Amino acid sequence: MTVLRTPYLLFVGDARDQLAAKTAVGVLHWRPEWCVGQVRLPGCRAELALPEMTIEQGAKAGAGTLIVGVANRGGVIAEDWTDTLVRALEAGLDLASGLHDRLSDNPRLRQTAERCGRRLFDVRHPDRVFDVGTGSPRAGKRLLTVGTDCSVGKMYASLALETAMRARGIKADFRATGQTGIVIAGGGVSVDAVVADFISGATEWLSPANDPDHWDIIEGQGSLFHPSFAGVSLGLLHGAQADVLVMCHEPTRTHMRGLPDRPLPGIAECIDANVSAARLTSPGVRCIGVAVNTSGMPPSDVDGYLAKLEDNLSLPCVDPVATDAGRLVDCLSP
Amino acid sequence: MTVLRTPYLLFVGDARDQLAAKTAVGVLHWRPEWCVGQVRLPGCRAELALPEMTIEQGAKAGAGTLIVGVANRGGVIAEDWTDTLVRALEAGLDLASGLHDRLSDNPRLRQTAERCGRRLFDVRHPDRVFDVGTGSPRAGKRLLTVGTDCSVGKMYASLALETAMRARGIKADFRATGQTGIVIAGGGVSVDAVVADFISGATEWLSPANDPDHWDIIEGQGSLFHPSFAGVSLGLLHGAQADVLVMCHEPTRTHMRGLPDRPLPGIAECIDANVSAARLTSPGVRCIGVAVNTSGMPPSDVDGYLAKLEDNLSLPCVDPVATDAGRLVDCLSP
Repeated sequence: MTVLRTPYLLFVGDARDQLAAKTAVGVLHWRPEWCVGQVRLPGCRAELALPEMTIEQGAKAGAGTLIVGVANRGGVIAEDWTDTLVRALEAGLDLASGLHDRLSDNPRLRQTAERCGRRLFDVRHPDRVFDVGTGSPRAGKRLLTVGTDCSVGKMYASLALETAMRARGIKADFRATGQTGIVIAGGGVSVDAVVADFISGATEWLSPANDPDHWDIIEGQGSLFHPSFAGVSLGLLHGAQADVLVMCHEPTRTHMRGLPDRPLPGIAECIDANVSAARLTSPGVRCIGVAVNTSGMPPSDVDGYLAKLEDNLSLPCVDPVATDAGRLVDCLSP
Repeated sequence: MTVLRTPYLLFVGDARDQLAAKTAVGVLHWRPEWCVGQVRLPGCRAELALPEMTIEQGAKAGAGTLIVGVANRGGVIAEDWTDTLVRALEAGLDLASGLHDRLSDNPRLRQTAERCGRRLFDVRHPDRVFDVGTGSPRAGKRLLTVGTDCSVGKMYASLALETAMRARGIKADFRATGQTGIVIAGGGVSVDAVVADFISGATEWLSPANDPDHWDIIEGQGSLFHPSFAGVSLGLLHGAQADVLVMCHEPTRTHMRGLPDRPLPGIAECIDANVSAARLTSPGVRCIGVAVNTSGMPPSDVDGYLAKLEDNLSLPCVDPVATDAGRLVDCLSP
């Protein structure tokens, strides 16, 4: 597994707004103890609650890796960033990026990394070969977050569950399947970037056999109801071999992400489809509740919405990030 | 789309038995009009009903491509084959292979192809970038073969359907999604080798909008019930946007391919799961029948088995290769 050297120095670059710094914001939110500072360039409009540093100050503060925590249109490594990234390598830091463009395809970065003995981590691109999945039972317990759509908060829900479980002394590890998650976890595999034959195999590799009372909290991707990405979601579902599923939903979404003509599935229908498909490798699987991302709702609507949904589904429905994931954790034991 | 230059000269190499020459056998079975001859090496134990030729004789007979029609353990390009493959390039032929090893990774072959202006087609490895699928409706009609397991005869059933439809004057084109199919079709895309995010997109690309009365017969892969490959099968199902499905089954199979502990799904259950999942992008989809691969059954059992299955499912159940696909073609119009 990719294992990034902590702590991190967060490169926010010339982010045009806070959303463009989504990766940096996520890392700081979930792993504040790993973040020593932020590096901003002139014109940057994103701001983290972290000391502002030069590369050299970050190195002195002990940073092991500079995280490219900013995205731009096209996912390219901007020309303007290169001097700073080169300085980070020269100051002894590794580089990690979840952008589409590879750090290792940039000749200056590659040569500097070689010269300085530093490493470049392109976390969106799997750096190893996987076996095909087998579906054979393995020890340990696993929870998978699934969703009605892409980008509804599966990663945040997974991390909130990890936090709540650890707070109760439960052995739990977040297992990252996307680029931001990989930076937050310090490792993982970007499952939508593996070769199609190996989706379930990569997921089995990511969440191997473990202690009988250990939980892997596996970050889901896409949705069985998203026509672009359902194959990834199904491979993940089969590879995860989950004991329990948590359905993730974003109530203000008016259509499937990127497809203006396609409505969202019903939550109950989506739960049924996921449980039914998951049974192939985990016959006893059950859905323990719904993680609702209420961040886009008027605050006054939230309680009523959750109460009504809970009544309809007869399952706990909570926003595990805005409040806490305790009621979901209560349901882990059958 | 990869488009191979016909006619073909079939390289059977040193195949240790007929099964090792599966690709050559399949090409000759379905495209005899494209096959000018076979090239065998000393020790070859496979035999095709084709004139035996040297490379030079094949070139003189007009061959455009030498098809590597033999597989060995590991899917490597054997050292012993290289002289013959080089001679083919020098004689003006292109090379096509569905092996895991790439022709283009072999320095001698690459250099010879460059020097002679010939092309190397590694049909297992997609040679282009795809967009993600959209699920948007497109013109034309499409049939997809699906299966209870891998390797149950989806390609043969698809080709038998194409033959039967063309015999009735129906506009029909086989669309290949695996390496042998690509050689038989002269083009296609090996969907299990594309990056996971693009499975449905690659399938949409493979079977684009067409005349309203034109049928694409799309070769299925894997099975929704195979824990190693179901993600590929689902992406294919969504990308195909099929009007009709044909379920493929091999009755002597005692367990899912490669997984001795895993029983096959029931055929009715498998039909339901496929139709249900396919509705996401093709709301009116229906399964018109079952293509049974009876090649492993005692001949005296076949009729009774098919009659009983047909009675259970209330759908036509035929071996479209051993007999013909006419009864399935009858069901294409609702």
